Amino acid sequence: MEKLEKQINFILELDKLKSIMRRSYLLNRERFEDSAEHSWHVSVLALTLAEHADDEIDLTHVLKMLLIHDVVEIDAGDTYFFDKKGNSDKTEREMKAAERIFGLLPPEQENDFRSAWEEYEEGDTKNARFANALDRFIPLLHNYYTQGKSWQEHKVRFEQVMTLKEPIEKGSKSLWEYAHSLILSAVEKGYLAK
Amino acid sequence: MEKLEKQINFILELDKLKSIMRRSYLLNRERFEDSAEHSWHVSVLALTLAEHADDEIDLTHVLKMLLIHDVVEIDAGDTYFFDKKGNSDKTEREMKAAERIFGLLPPEQENDFRSAWEEYEEGDTKNARFANALDRFIPLLHNYYTQGKSWQEHKVRFEQVMTLKEPIEKGSKSLWEYAHSLILSAVEKGYLAK
Repeated sequence: MEKLEKQINFILELDKLKSIMRRSYLLNRERFEDSAEHSWHVSVLALTLAEHADDEIDLTHVLKMLLIHDVVEIDAGDTYFFDKKGNSDKTEREMKAAERIFGLLPPEQENDFRSAWEEYEEGDTKNARFANALDRFIPLLHNYYTQGKSWQEHKVRFEQVMTLKEPIEKGSKSLWEYAHSLILSAVEKGYLAK
Repeated sequence: MEKLEKQINFILELDKLKSIMRRSYLLNRERFEDSAEHSWHVSVLALTLAEHADDEIDLTHVLKMLLIHDVVEIDAGDTYFFDKKGNSDKTEREMKAAERIFGLLPPEQENDFRSAWEEYEEGDTKNARFANALDRFIPLLHNYYTQGKSWQEHKVRFEQVMTLKEPIEKGSKSLWEYAHSLILSAVEKGYLAK
């Protein structure tokens, strides 16, 4: 019962992720999406696109990483991919957050979840590469289908978006092919400045 | 590429679940949570509490069911558990929604996702029983930790909340034990009317 109590405390704490706002707009353009919504969306993306992973992946492990990949934002906030300053101390802030938040769990599970999160952050394993590819891919959809709203507000340019290439291509060549054509089309349509 | 195109269309459509509001408040009491946030939260709950399932479960399959269990609400809306009228034609509305929404996927995946959703709805397999138990359990946490805010607004009483017993107990006896003590405590503290 004490173990269950700790697990529930972790779950209760996670509710706060629903109030962490990202820079991606909902496709209806009405508001930013929050990190809990994004974590769900990217997990369903993994479920749907598993066959497009270049390597043989363990879907449960990919889902585990994606479901918890953003919980550190409860303390560290969402760091926009193109925010240089924010990214300079992101690792430090997130490591501290991971310690506190995963530390709510029973010790064994704390280690398990934390190592999954670290594996995701390092992005070196087959599973982490695919998970990272999906996480970089999905904001492209949000930008493209809101006519580049967030890109324009943050003055993001083509060259910056192309830095997404490596992590997407490392996880799925077919997904990068799709992403690349989307980026070129965004430039052509004037959603993204060159 | 045509297959990927269909899969992406499904993912784009799913963005709408972020605008479907439930009757559960965020723990900070500021607003209702939406069904995408809930789907994420209950999926992390499965990840965290897998060991509390009474039967041997296939975690990937449980996660799959939970990640997609509410997507039909995009067309059918969220039906509050204690809304008699809404529940009278819920099945019909949701079946129609399932047809349209899963129908966006390539045929093989449509069948696969749809049968996972139906399995969840029927709640008869080991995996579906555990998934249903979690889905019934998590609103209890939201109610309890917001001092029964949603229960009171909808004049929900102890006897109604006790109807959650069967589905939770069928999936996890230890979780029902925990839930039961929470319900009794809610009555004692005046969050829930007897």
